[in-house]
Amino acid sequence: MKNTIGNSVTLTLFGESHGPAIGAVLDGIAPGIKVDEGFIAAQLARRRPCSPTDTPRVEKDEFSILSGVYEGFTTGQPLAIVIPNENVRSTDYEKGIARPSHADFTAHAKFHGFEDPRGGGHFSGRVTAAIVAAGAICRQALEAKGISLATHILSCAGVRDEDLAGCDPDELGGKISTVNAKSFPVILDIEAEVSAGILKAREQQDSIGGTIQTAVCGVPAGVGEPWFDSLEGMIAHAVFAIGGIKGVEFGKGFAMDGLRGSQVNDSLRIRDGKVVTATNNNGGINGGISNGMPIVFNMAVKPTPSIARTQQSVDFLQGKEVELNLKGRHDPAIIRRICPVVSSLTAVVLCDALALRYGTDWLAAR
Amino acid sequence: MKNTIGNSVTLTLFGESHGPAIGAVLDGIAPGIKVDEGFIAAQLARRRPCSPTDTPRVEKDEFSILSGVYEGFTTGQPLAIVIPNENVRSTDYEKGIARPSHADFTAHAKFHGFEDPRGGGHFSGRVTAAIVAAGAICRQALEAKGISLATHILSCAGVRDEDLAGCDPDELGGKISTVNAKSFPVILDIEAEVSAGILKAREQQDSIGGTIQTAVCGVPAGVGEPWFDSLEGMIAHAVFAIGGIKGVEFGKGFAMDGLRGSQVNDSLRIRDGKVVTATNNNGGINGGISNGMPIVFNMAVKPTPSIARTQQSVDFLQGKEVELNLKGRHDPAIIRRICPVVSSLTAVVLCDALALRYGTDWLAAR
Amino acid sequence: MKNTIGNSVTLTLFGESHGPAIGAVLDGIAPGIKVDEGFIAAQLARRRPCSPTDTPRVEKDEFSILSGVYEGFTTGQPLAIVIPNENVRSTDYEKGIARPSHADFTAHAKFHGFEDPRGGGHFSGRVTAAIVAAGAICRQALEAKGISLATHILSCAGVRDEDLAGCDPDELGGKISTVNAKSFPVILDIEAEVSAGILKAREQQDSIGGTIQTAVCGVPAGVGEPWFDSLEGMIAHAVFAIGGIKGVEFGKGFAMDGLRGSQVNDSLRIRDGKVVTATNNNGGINGGISNGMPIVFNMAVKPTPSIARTQQSVDFLQGKEVELNLKGRHDPAIIRRICPVVSSLTAVVLCDALALRYGTDWLAAR
Amino acid sequence: MKNTIGNSVTLTLFGESHGPAIGAVLDGIAPGIKVDEGFIAAQLARRRPCSPTDTPRVEKDEFSILSGVYEGFTTGQPLAIVIPNENVRSTDYEKGIARPSHADFTAHAKFHGFEDPRGGGHFSGRVTAAIVAAGAICRQALEAKGISLATHILSCAGVRDEDLAGCDPDELGGKISTVNAKSFPVILDIEAEVSAGILKAREQQDSIGGTIQTAVCGVPAGVGEPWFDSLEGMIAHAVFAIGGIKGVEFGKGFAMDGLRGSQVNDSLRIRDGKVVTATNNNGGINGGISNGMPIVFNMAVKPTPSIARTQQSVDFLQGKEVELNLKGRHDPAIIRRICPVVSSLTAVVLCDALALRYGTDWLAAR
Repeated sequence: MKNTIGNSVTLTLFGESHGPAIGAVLDGIAPGIKVDEGFIAAQLARRRPCSPTDTPRVEKDEFSILSGVYEGFTTGQPLAIVIPNENVRSTDYEKGIARPSHADFTAHAKFHGFEDPRGGGHFSGRVTAAIVAAGAICRQALEAKGISLATHILSCAGVRDEDLAGCDPDELGGKISTVNAKSFPVILDIEAEVSAGILKAREQQDSIGGTIQTAVCGVPAGVGEPWFDSLEGMIAHAVFAIGGIKGVEFGKGFAMDGLRGSQVNDSLRIRDGKVVTATNNNGGINGGISNGMPIVFNMAVKPTPSIARTQQSVDFLQGKEVELNLKGRHDPAIIRRICPVVSSLTAVVLCDALALRYGTDWLAAR
Repeated sequence: MKNTIGNSVTLTLFGESHGPAIGAVLDGIAPGIKVDEGFIAAQLARRRPCSPTDTPRVEKDEFSILSGVYEGFTTGQPLAIVIPNENVRSTDYEKGIARPSHADFTAHAKFHGFEDPRGGGHFSGRVTAAIVAAGAICRQALEAKGISLATHILSCAGVRDEDLAGCDPDELGGKISTVNAKSFPVILDIEAEVSAGILKAREQQDSIGGTIQTAVCGVPAGVGEPWFDSLEGMIAHAVFAIGGIKGVEFGKGFAMDGLRGSQVNDSLRIRDGKVVTATNNNGGINGGISNGMPIVFNMAVKPTPSIARTQQSVDFLQGKEVELNLKGRHDPAIIRRICPVVSSLTAVVLCDALALRYGTDWLAAR
Repeated sequence: MKNTIGNSVTLTLFGESHGPAIGAVLDGIAPGIKVDEGFIAAQLARRRPCSPTDTPRVEKDEFSILSGVYEGFTTGQPLAIVIPNENVRSTDYEKGIARPSHADFTAHAKFHGFEDPRGGGHFSGRVTAAIVAAGAICRQALEAKGISLATHILSCAGVRDEDLAGCDPDELGGKISTVNAKSFPVILDIEAEVSAGILKAREQQDSIGGTIQTAVCGVPAGVGEPWFDSLEGMIAHAVFAIGGIKGVEFGKGFAMDGLRGSQVNDSLRIRDGKVVTATNNNGGINGGISNGMPIVFNMAVKPTPSIARTQQSVDFLQGKEVELNLKGRHDPAIIRRICPVVSSLTAVVLCDALALRYGTDWLAAR
Repeated sequence: MKNTIGNSVTLTLFGESHGPAIGAVLDGIAPGIKVDEGFIAAQLARRRPCSPTDTPRVEKDEFSILSGVYEGFTTGQPLAIVIPNENVRSTDYEKGIARPSHADFTAHAKFHGFEDPRGGGHFSGRVTAAIVAAGAICRQALEAKGISLATHILSCAGVRDEDLAGCDPDELGGKISTVNAKSFPVILDIEAEVSAGILKAREQQDSIGGTIQTAVCGVPAGVGEPWFDSLEGMIAHAVFAIGGIKGVEFGKGFAMDGLRGSQVNDSLRIRDGKVVTATNNNGGINGGISNGMPIVFNMAVKPTPSIARTQQSVDFLQGKEVELNLKGRHDPAIIRRICPVVSSLTAVVLCDALALRYGTDWLAAR
């Protein structure tokens, strides 16, 4: 399905970095969800470059909802959002010269030179603005059903934020609120230190990677499917859409290598008449299905491939090796800006899984 | 789609651990692929318990191909494989007692008590035998087109195998052959040491996790889709079907946290007239699309949840806490047996992506 | 998806006429549906040749449910049904000679000679036995929710049965029961006359077509989707799987040509506090969505292509024209046997649409 | 998938009659297809009201392509087309009053009053403009590969056009060109007579139905799938998206009722070394797969439900019966305007089936 994800609820993306607009169609969403354009704008602002750690290319992100909303509520019909591109400087890009670790060469291999090369074209992170906008509607719908989520920087520049995998479920809601209230998505007081690390990379004409973490609370037990529509599989499928994400792990993930079953098995207990687990090493998912505990997963974010240093590359149109000195405007780290994108994608996937489970109306039912 | 994955080529799973049979339907596969039942049997043997490090439950895995093969070749029509269950001891399982970190409780939350609880029912690793069998056909088809792959234990019990992410592409084919020729899937001479670590866990009534790695060589540049059908997303979606896998990373993955763009960007070079990258930190995929380099990804395998120690759990039917002493026959580590499953799933995903790109006939074209 | 249909509830088919078995996987069906093997067998019997109007090839249709049923109820997991082929006479078929209006030549064009040619292979009507079996489970689930359906011969051999499009909704349930209780699916007392027409065609070494009609009562208003998952589109997609069906019309269908809006618009009225229509010329569907009235649609059934007369054809392997004298065992009309197949397919589609609307559990909820 | 159709090539629709815009996303289309905006505009003009037989509401249909086209060619990435709504008179519609045979009541049953009721909202025929625009690109791509198609009025107001089912394949291309060159889509000289019939209905405050026919030439043998992705099923699924279509038949369709196998079987012959059929009663499709002959199918078009006469209806918000006198601007027959919509939908389905068969690049390959 290429640019569409989901079964009961689907998200379709379109647009290129330097074309007239990017956008998304969100379909299958329940009728009767209140659409708060201010919340959408706020999420777009969280994704927007806004600090010295980001690219100087700033877009206003003025979105238009073309369909699917009537008198402030979703109609249940496809909701199309369009965000015009405005601040475009196409002369910064040169066709045929592949930027290392970008999709220039693979796009050419696939699209035979018909791809729009300006600013990465359809592969540009610019397209994630549409994800943020569409997902913001899903996030608000989930919140109205008691399901909240946030994505924060877990680790960057050698600084580590609180790991929500071990957080007491009763306190998780508060942490999620904390992250969502801050423009720099961290829990602990580490913004200055992380920013300093990112700026240092920029000074050195370099970029920096990191790890982000998403936590969701309020998903009831029994959501997701065995085997191929496991929550893990569906979430991973969605977030790997983002070119900068190179790893996804649930719960303790790769840290389970080196541990024993007796150390990572989550004992089951009963609290207030409800089955819970004493620990949450499985990230809230067993056999692909939610167990009622918080869903927690981490993602590896690669260093932004665009760096100001001279790089070895090729001109694939002329078939020769070249030295590349990138112009254009770039982020030394996308780790802050990627967080609302992942939250939005996760919200879309959860709406899909919940709609399949409880029917298309459930999300708006009171 | 729950138990079906794929678009052009699809794989559908069915069966329960202690039911009459498990099986799979593989659809969309090209007509004219030679089906070598010996190869299928050999792959099933690689998944089968066969050493002191595995469960004592041994099935013969005598499969029947019910359809889709005529005179030794695929017909292009759905290929159904059925593997009867034989060695079943259902009395080992007790309904209502959730085994920690298994799907017993989540299955109950989802299926309301109608799930087959015997041996994990449909959630049992037993179902992966059907994946291995169906995927074996895809693997052979890929090999005929010059695409080979293997999955090996990258790390377990503190022992580490060679990391194929850094392997010279010209030598990778040989390493893949090496892994596929051994019953214990490792490259270096570490079988004894890994086995000892696993057996030690068993002696201590415990289990052990690890990391596995899949490497694929021969995929041409330009396969996969931007955004939602990225190769990373499709592969991750497939392998997260396996309950024991809790993380997937491509190329350097989570190790990119702490590194700079200048350290991980893959420079492009020209070798023998072909665009290559000097390193392969992106695991052969940029922007979701293959770049012609080997595709390499790692997966976190959790310690087998079934351990012989007393565990804290609940009887969710009676709503009370219990102490659980597991009977039944279990693996102290599934890490060896999971390798052919992942290879088969990867082969199915690749056949799907290739069929979409080059048409349904391509895989069998000469 | 080739051999799979549906979104929330899916049906996957496999098997060839003269292979070891045919079968189906039904996935996404709610847990807790009682599975009555006697009802399945009864539906299979309705499809089976049983009278002078049918082919002399009779299969016992002894089906095995391999998965998805536990202690007599669906588990919510994929339900695989296998029906072995027994009464096989492959020598009746000759590769390369295309039977007119069969799929022999198109199968060859698509599968390049790797298709199983025996008895039509995967294109054989034999595969519909698996549809009947899987759909029987859906039909019983629907009945438990007050939704009943039947398919009858509306017209054949110049004889016409009662048209249920005009039937008083209060009487429709009774007519549906009548059809389902008879081995020859008609409402009026026309069996002898229709049978005589069919037998006359056989005597003349010929075959005969007709029109069948499906009626469903009890579907609530609001099921189906606008545009591409309209109930009409989903039902038509499913029933056109049957090679012998060459037309589908809802309500008055093609008879609307020549009529005026004032003649066919269905006035809305209120009866017992419920919105109803005074007539049902739209077959219970407006804008793709059920309106609460009976869903009624007709299908054109072509004369069985296998006839005993000499026909002009080609040997596509040798590229020459031939005269064809068909051997083998054939039906002079498939119109009786196709009825339970269409009912089963319709039941699968309805379960899918209802599951999307009301969630996966709805069908078994009490 | 609701508002999305297709597998390899997908079409997603959005928009409401009186919202800011309607539009479509076409994804999976090959890179390198020349996009002729003049041709798109010409097709939109064919759908636009333009004569006394149409509604007086005229839109300019000024479309914008937001993505997926670069320097005049498709990029292979999703192509979004938006068509603003301009000529909107929302006061003509009244919420709660169901227009008979429209989707007002079913929309309400499904969307609980959150649907946009103005002008039929998302159910409006207005949305078909987006189909026409997106499909126009597919049509041009098909033509470049030698596949041409047209949809004409086969029967309306008691007047009948030439039936292309019986047309000599060698002459079909010419007839298709004829239809596509005329603003009133008929082959014979019947425009005046059909128009007179339609106008007479309007004078009598009524509307009129009819039958349309699509013919496609140039599709190679071997396209389509057995069972659930039969060409018949895929085409019917697509065209039933249009609320005004209530029947689809392939080849002789319902006329086969009453005929014998010996009368309708298509004898196979060899002409110029190619397998052909002497007649085309199966509409170019056997077993769901193209046989190389023209694909021909007919569709029942119901009389426009909006008529100026007083009708019996209900106010479903107040739960009472009402008399309805429709205001607003309506077509006495949509049969002319529906023709380019069906051609466009058919083109999308064919591109999808061809892409699955021959790969995503085929359509643009030279």
